[in-house]
Amino acid sequence: MSAPLNPPSLAEAVNAKGFSHAAGFRIVAVAPGNAEVALARRPDLVQFFGHFHGGVITALADQAAGVAVTSSLPAGRIGVTVEIKVNFLSPADGTELVARAKTLKMSGSIGVATVEVFSKDGATETLCAFCTATMRALDLPAEFR
Amino acid sequence: MSAPLNPPSLAEAVNAKGFSHAAGFRIVAVAPGNAEVALARRPDLVQFFGHFHGGVITALADQAAGVAVTSSLPAGRIGVTVEIKVNFLSPADGTELVARAKTLKMSGSIGVATVEVFSKDGATETLCAFCTATMRALDLPAEFR
Amino acid sequence: MSAPLNPPSLAEAVNAKGFSHAAGFRIVAVAPGNAEVALARRPDLVQFFGHFHGGVITALADQAAGVAVTSSLPAGRIGVTVEIKVNFLSPADGTELVARAKTLKMSGSIGVATVEVFSKDGATETLCAFCTATMRALDLPAEFR
Amino acid sequence: MSAPLNPPSLAEAVNAKGFSHAAGFRIVAVAPGNAEVALARRPDLVQFFGHFHGGVITALADQAAGVAVTSSLPAGRIGVTVEIKVNFLSPADGTELVARAKTLKMSGSIGVATVEVFSKDGATETLCAFCTATMRALDLPAEFR
Repeated sequence: MSAPLNPPSLAEAVNAKGFSHAAGFRIVAVAPGNAEVALARRPDLVQFFGHFHGGVITALADQAAGVAVTSSLPAGRIGVTVEIKVNFLSPADGTELVARAKTLKMSGSIGVATVEVFSKDGATETLCAFCTATMRALDLPAEFR
Repeated sequence: MSAPLNPPSLAEAVNAKGFSHAAGFRIVAVAPGNAEVALARRPDLVQFFGHFHGGVITALADQAAGVAVTSSLPAGRIGVTVEIKVNFLSPADGTELVARAKTLKMSGSIGVATVEVFSKDGATETLCAFCTATMRALDLPAEFR
Repeated sequence: MSAPLNPPSLAEAVNAKGFSHAAGFRIVAVAPGNAEVALARRPDLVQFFGHFHGGVITALADQAAGVAVTSSLPAGRIGVTVEIKVNFLSPADGTELVARAKTLKMSGSIGVATVEVFSKDGATETLCAFCTATMRALDLPAEFR
Repeated sequence: MSAPLNPPSLAEAVNAKGFSHAAGFRIVAVAPGNAEVALARRPDLVQFFGHFHGGVITALADQAAGVAVTSSLPAGRIGVTVEIKVNFLSPADGTELVARAKTLKMSGSIGVATVEVFSKDGATETLCAFCTATMRALDLPAEFR
């Protein structure tokens, strides 16, 4: 997880579009098989109790898993989500979320990643969600290359 | 799934806040143990390929599961998500999503719901995701009553 | 779910080996994309409280999902499990288990099935577990054809 | 994971019954929130290709998660499985399985554990499955105390 991202990359291109851009996902670091993605709290990202919404937590975990798996694929390939599973462990009531993903296994075109999501408040990080995601590697369609 | 929602309800109150409000979730129908929640496509809700983002799909499924489980609880109780699992089955490339949740089982304070999420394009509905969610019932904190 | 199995089939061959044979799994019916597999209670299949062991319930659900997905594949292909997820809904304290699987979607080599597992006591069936499974289709190795 | 189990314990009592006894599950070590459970290969525990059956792998992971969660509960309480999810990462073709579980979080009566399952062949361990399990703590019924 040492290397900062070397832009412009596929991960940055993916992140700069649609929901991940609108929500403000920030790719913090990428290394082959690993990724860290962060998200600052905003009023439009929370749920009824004022904590980060579970769907937003899942979206962040999904993004981190996708970047982690894609970062270990050859150029021109991208990982898309087959299924994702998240356990919510404690209230995500910090000022920021940080999702750290690592690829457990690539087997043919199937990759499996785990993601720990932390709720940050100042220097304190609390594990607020744990995620597993199954990805499949696709050739990036020509219009996206 | 017949009865339209009778506002103002807890489901409407939950839905009127934070991410679900900002994204435009619409509660279509609620019956004890069941719920239908819809979401129109917007550019800030999609992913790289232009389909609804998997995290947004999960958020919608989560909301539908929460409303379904909460609707079968006594007044003053609310279902919060323990864990959620989504399989993505086909591209969510329609103009609208519709999530239909049903409670499989309440056992003590634990409820399990399944959610089918459809991508709609005109009159055509395509099953794009299938979700299971485990909820736990809590007493609604006093400040939210 | 109408047609009885037409032996000898791949499903029967798979079922006649190892754990599924030793435990006594019975393929009740197979139709393209669907399967029903049953299991009678035995003292070596239960857990501490005397109900069917969760791992045995999962094994039965897995077998049913595998047969359901494989039954929709061309000859010489078999579905193997990528991941499986089971919610346990009520005590599996009947005299028999029946697992009914249906394929939700085949997309390329990936298939997703849901399985309802019922605990039977005489004519009464109780839903005791709900399962989703992701399968991938492989060419059957030559030595197994 | 240092301390050997101090028998007779609840974990040993659970393990000495039904399927876990018949299959030959061995509790290797228990520490608060952690457990290691092993299983030697036998012809009646494999699937069609001769690897450990996915249901048997799940049963072992479930047992390890249950012991891990139960080991952190007060005396007279036991963890039972709400839901379990397993990703199969590589063929479980070794001579033994070892499942190592750790509790991520206890929150009220709900506990979440992750389990790594390794296929062993001599001194070589290969991660063959990754599991998450959600448990709920119950008072042990009087007849089991």
